[in-house]
Amino acid sequence: MHNQTHLEKIFQPRSIAVFGASEREHSVGRKVFCNLLNSQFAGKLYPINPKHKKVFGHTCYASLNEVNDVDLAVIVTPAATVPTILRQCGEKNIHSAIIISAGFSETGEKGKELEQNILDIAKQYQIHFIGPNCLGVMRPSSHLNATFDNNDALPGDIALVSQSGAICAAILDWAMEREIGFSTIVSMGNSIDLDFGDVLEFLAHDKKTKSILLYIEGVHYPERFMQGLRAASAKKAVIALKAGRNTSGVRAVHSHTGALVGDDDIFTAALNRGGAVRVDSIEQLFTAAQVLSNSHRASGNKLMIVTNGGGAGVMAADHATDLNLTLPEPNEKLLSTLNSILPTAWSHQNPIDMLGDATPERYRQVVEACLQDEDSDGLISILVPVAMSQPLHVAKEICQFEQQSKKPLIACWMGDKQSKSSRQLFAEHHIPCFSTPEVAVEAFSYLSRYFHNQKLLAQLPSKKMNSKNNFSLAKKIIATAQNEKRDTLTMQETKQLLASIDLPITKSIEAMTADEAVSAAEQIGYPVAIKILSPDITHKQDVGGVKLNIATPEAVRKAFDNIMSAAKSHAPTAKMLGVTVEHMQQNPNDRELMIGVLRDPVFGSVITFGMGGSLVEVIRDRAIGLPPLNDFLARHLIAETRAAKMLDEFRGKPPVKINLLIDILLRISDLVIEFPKIKEMDINPLLINDKDAIVVDARLMIDTKNANSG
Amino acid sequence: MHNQTHLEKIFQPRSIAVFGASEREHSVGRKVFCNLLNSQFAGKLYPINPKHKKVFGHTCYASLNEVNDVDLAVIVTPAATVPTILRQCGEKNIHSAIIISAGFSETGEKGKELEQNILDIAKQYQIHFIGPNCLGVMRPSSHLNATFDNNDALPGDIALVSQSGAICAAILDWAMEREIGFSTIVSMGNSIDLDFGDVLEFLAHDKKTKSILLYIEGVHYPERFMQGLRAASAKKAVIALKAGRNTSGVRAVHSHTGALVGDDDIFTAALNRGGAVRVDSIEQLFTAAQVLSNSHRASGNKLMIVTNGGGAGVMAADHATDLNLTLPEPNEKLLSTLNSILPTAWSHQNPIDMLGDATPERYRQVVEACLQDEDSDGLISILVPVAMSQPLHVAKEICQFEQQSKKPLIACWMGDKQSKSSRQLFAEHHIPCFSTPEVAVEAFSYLSRYFHNQKLLAQLPSKKMNSKNNFSLAKKIIATAQNEKRDTLTMQETKQLLASIDLPITKSIEAMTADEAVSAAEQIGYPVAIKILSPDITHKQDVGGVKLNIATPEAVRKAFDNIMSAAKSHAPTAKMLGVTVEHMQQNPNDRELMIGVLRDPVFGSVITFGMGGSLVEVIRDRAIGLPPLNDFLARHLIAETRAAKMLDEFRGKPPVKINLLIDILLRISDLVIEFPKIKEMDINPLLINDKDAIVVDARLMIDTKNANSG
Repeated sequence: MHNQTHLEKIFQPRSIAVFGASEREHSVGRKVFCNLLNSQFAGKLYPINPKHKKVFGHTCYASLNEVNDVDLAVIVTPAATVPTILRQCGEKNIHSAIIISAGFSETGEKGKELEQNILDIAKQYQIHFIGPNCLGVMRPSSHLNATFDNNDALPGDIALVSQSGAICAAILDWAMEREIGFSTIVSMGNSIDLDFGDVLEFLAHDKKTKSILLYIEGVHYPERFMQGLRAASAKKAVIALKAGRNTSGVRAVHSHTGALVGDDDIFTAALNRGGAVRVDSIEQLFTAAQVLSNSHRASGNKLMIVTNGGGAGVMAADHATDLNLTLPEPNEKLLSTLNSILPTAWSHQNPIDMLGDATPERYRQVVEACLQDEDSDGLISILVPVAMSQPLHVAKEICQFEQQSKKPLIACWMGDKQSKSSRQLFAEHHIPCFSTPEVAVEAFSYLSRYFHNQKLLAQLPSKKMNSKNNFSLAKKIIATAQNEKRDTLTMQETKQLLASIDLPITKSIEAMTADEAVSAAEQIGYPVAIKILSPDITHKQDVGGVKLNIATPEAVRKAFDNIMSAAKSHAPTAKMLGVTVEHMQQNPNDRELMIGVLRDPVFGSVITFGMGGSLVEVIRDRAIGLPPLNDFLARHLIAETRAAKMLDEFRGKPPVKINLLIDILLRISDLVIEFPKIKEMDINPLLINDKDAIVVDARLMIDTKNANSG
Repeated sequence: MHNQTHLEKIFQPRSIAVFGASEREHSVGRKVFCNLLNSQFAGKLYPINPKHKKVFGHTCYASLNEVNDVDLAVIVTPAATVPTILRQCGEKNIHSAIIISAGFSETGEKGKELEQNILDIAKQYQIHFIGPNCLGVMRPSSHLNATFDNNDALPGDIALVSQSGAICAAILDWAMEREIGFSTIVSMGNSIDLDFGDVLEFLAHDKKTKSILLYIEGVHYPERFMQGLRAASAKKAVIALKAGRNTSGVRAVHSHTGALVGDDDIFTAALNRGGAVRVDSIEQLFTAAQVLSNSHRASGNKLMIVTNGGGAGVMAADHATDLNLTLPEPNEKLLSTLNSILPTAWSHQNPIDMLGDATPERYRQVVEACLQDEDSDGLISILVPVAMSQPLHVAKEICQFEQQSKKPLIACWMGDKQSKSSRQLFAEHHIPCFSTPEVAVEAFSYLSRYFHNQKLLAQLPSKKMNSKNNFSLAKKIIATAQNEKRDTLTMQETKQLLASIDLPITKSIEAMTADEAVSAAEQIGYPVAIKILSPDITHKQDVGGVKLNIATPEAVRKAFDNIMSAAKSHAPTAKMLGVTVEHMQQNPNDRELMIGVLRDPVFGSVITFGMGGSLVEVIRDRAIGLPPLNDFLARHLIAETRAAKMLDEFRGKPPVKINLLIDILLRISDLVIEFPKIKEMDINPLLINDKDAIVVDARLMIDTKNANSG
């Protein structure tokens, strides 16, 4: 990746030109230059500012003309001057920049033009840059602090990449007090050139970085983002906080899938698929930072809890259950060790309650035994400051041998007044320490979820498409609708299209009169379902356009009349073509499911799955998968729903033919990969039992813009 | 309440006898006596210990004989000596005690006997006590610290009542660093005599206490608990943490209601009904303590957010939406004030983003304007430590005028290094300050939930039972089953019983042969449903015992045979009486609901409501109400479910007759109040549409123990 060379120059420059360096009080130029000086950058610094001769003792240059051999330009001048400066950089063969200056697209239309302008210049000269409108970049191992922040990060192995400069500043300020160090801090700003994907790609291969924290508000280049994310999280724990969960943009949706799935749900699916662990609050990002500052990782979800207070142990166990962690019972070996260490009244189970009078020696022995235990993946050690506890003494014992273990050890020193000094000691030893059991448990859950997501990440999509798929027919159907500028396929087109990828579909006959409906019903066989046929009506039930379980010719006539008049009164402007008549499916072992497709403006097509029927909006059971699916991912998608429970043997019904369901999901995955023009699709219900499956109803919408492509 | 006088002597004694006072290093007797001395208790202290002449300069007495006029006994001697001491107290007219000594029921059978022993003695002498096995009691306003804790609480107006001494110690240690004070701290220990209910009753009327924090592991006397809770939360904010959410005891359940509802869900319903706000973690209890340390309360859920960082504002807004808080848009008056204060690029909406260069003056003006705004109930002021922010300066501005406001103001000073000094200042001014936006939002939500729960608390059950209820018939049916030691009513009994309280029931005819089934079907009218009839089969569908939509005599015969053979093969030992034949309900406007009754060992009968049908265990939609219900509470119960959505106009169906549903819920409430012997009941489905409702299936189980009572 070509951008990587640029990022190397950004993170490890030999020389820097600082445009706008100054001694003026409260100026950003002063702050940035001071930070560069104070961080003891070893390379050459060239302050550039026509207004000054010297800046803090350094010769200040009027322009780039007087300077040679610059790796990196740091720009803090007013927005209007940036295009000229970038051009000068290009002429002098400087190809990497950090543009801290604000005043671009964030300020409105004029700023947006200016932004496009600098992007064009950058392209012309093959310059790549971070920003504009950002806090800057820190790289402690390079003694580089090219930001205007009040703090200078300690060296460490966590990388922090944040879209918001303020969040960056807040996390750093918080981390300073806990001696948490960073390999890299990048404030992305407007990120119109180098984006998350590029930085993630760099960090994936960066030897200084062991884990990555992301604060994301939105992604500009989703493909590069996913590629960078996958590369990074294959090797390092990536924890992502995405802001704006509940502020989903206005999106016109026509399908139930659309109504049930927010943009943010899709972001979560994408992060999971990319191997990242998503957190939902800054609180949790702090927690993640602290647990990642220690280098031990979990290889499973089995957690052992040690405590000197029963109540605190119960609270920890409660939260572990909430987070789907497993609390293994002590095995025989551990049990006998613990029996030999502890007074007889100990809990004899996990959480291991050592009792209120636990001495430092008892703590040390128990924690050591638990770390050696082979049946757990991590340990939380809780200390409650009761009268007999000696918090600091216990902390010292634990710090002494934590390094020898391979498993993560998380401390939870409750209280504050008596545990302050221990906290400080733990921070010095990079042992994560929290003040409540729940947060300690949450910290472990990030390690365990990271391990779990590695499995999803390892899934390679099956490259081979299903041979039975007849895409030429599907292509023809879609092309016809596109040519006619119809975004909704007719019922018959939808059925043909699904049949073309070998999905089983209920047979239906169109009827324009009551007489035709009766003859259709007799041809198909009673009981039948009758549904309104109109290109303008998507939700037939909502307009009184569906009658089920019709068993006689008279009832067919009555249903026909009722449907036509109900539909006309509910949708007076809709074009009515008549009705469709279908045989009613009546296998008592059937389960009703829904499969949907939705196209996200950022991540493209997604597949959803869940319980089906007319109550989907009330039941709200759906999971989201990103195509291409494979067998593992399809099973994972199903397992994430409540519907999974009824697919097994359920209330007297035999288990459904699960391989058939997976096959259907894979065919739909093939379909949406082949036709990204499919904008929305609802298959609802899909009936499935122990022998077969059938699509009873479906609707499909395509994108009619740019009819010639895709 | 007689216990209250005892509690007054415990919290405000004029003189204390300390049994087991000592100077021995590391002894509890030393620690407790020192704490009493150090807290500068103004009354008389009598150390009692035959081993010593003096304890820390105070004359030590060999026994109670030498001492007179003692209000309170504090006992820290070994468990075995406690009975004798209690007896001596009784003889000397001491009626109040704190028993700190451990070694009772928590240690096993022998301890349990000893515990019963002291309870008997206490009853004999009308002594009431806190404990045993507890940390003790603090009452800063009385200069009373009768605990063996390492901290001495600061005076304040929060009461902390905790079942666990360790949690008590942890919260106190944490609070010390934040200058959070307490009116009362009670460690309940085994609480075999005075329990939560008594202490809550006292605190309800205690002028020193403005809010109450509870840490509960279990409740011994639920009626007293609920009575005390209601009294307390009618006047003061009560925040309760209940441990052991996921460790529900093993309970044999036969109904779907039973399977869907845990003991802990019922505890939540009870806490809500009692007006308390339940929290789920110690973290949240800390948060609650901090927000309650300020005396302002919210009178609604409308939250205004002010910030100097956009990202932090988004995170706050996200979490506010999660917690069902409302973020009102600034009204015209506020808008014009803000426009006159802020630079034009400000957000112009809530959250109010004042931009990164916000000065202390700008902060002050904006916060002041927001506090004066009449369209919001509280304010969160966020400061992110960016380069230009002056955290301490802003904090000073805010502290100056917070007292003038009536609305709660919550500070969120992000970071740590630069915000430490502000935090200290806020603590001194009792302004709650948190380090992340989510926690600040959560803090406000407790105030808002407290306000909301007051409405629930204010509901008085309608005393008048429904005149159409015919309890004499119901009584007879239940008595018959009890006499026959049957815990499950037959289908016909269940239907009769429900009909006796005027619930509409589907008509069904029993049939023992296929011929009888056909004639039943013809009498009732096709289509019919046929169901197995067996006293031993509760879940008919699970054994293949249900066939629906049967339209012809031949199909009836086939269904009869299939059902009998399926049931026999699934439940070979069950007694088969034949089948029941019912008319199939076929109103397309019907919604399927479930109403359940469950008897909790602690809180008695509860009523559940949610979506019905054969998928209830998968859909998992249910809310819990404690009888007696009234109209408001029944509506509240319905509104808490997802089912509520489909009861309105839904997918072409007119809204259901909601008053009919409420009436049915009230009748069932009457029924369970009248017959606490009803152990479990499932009405599923109850079909309801815009005109009528009908119970299609139901099962009812009664308690056959102690057949003569209830």
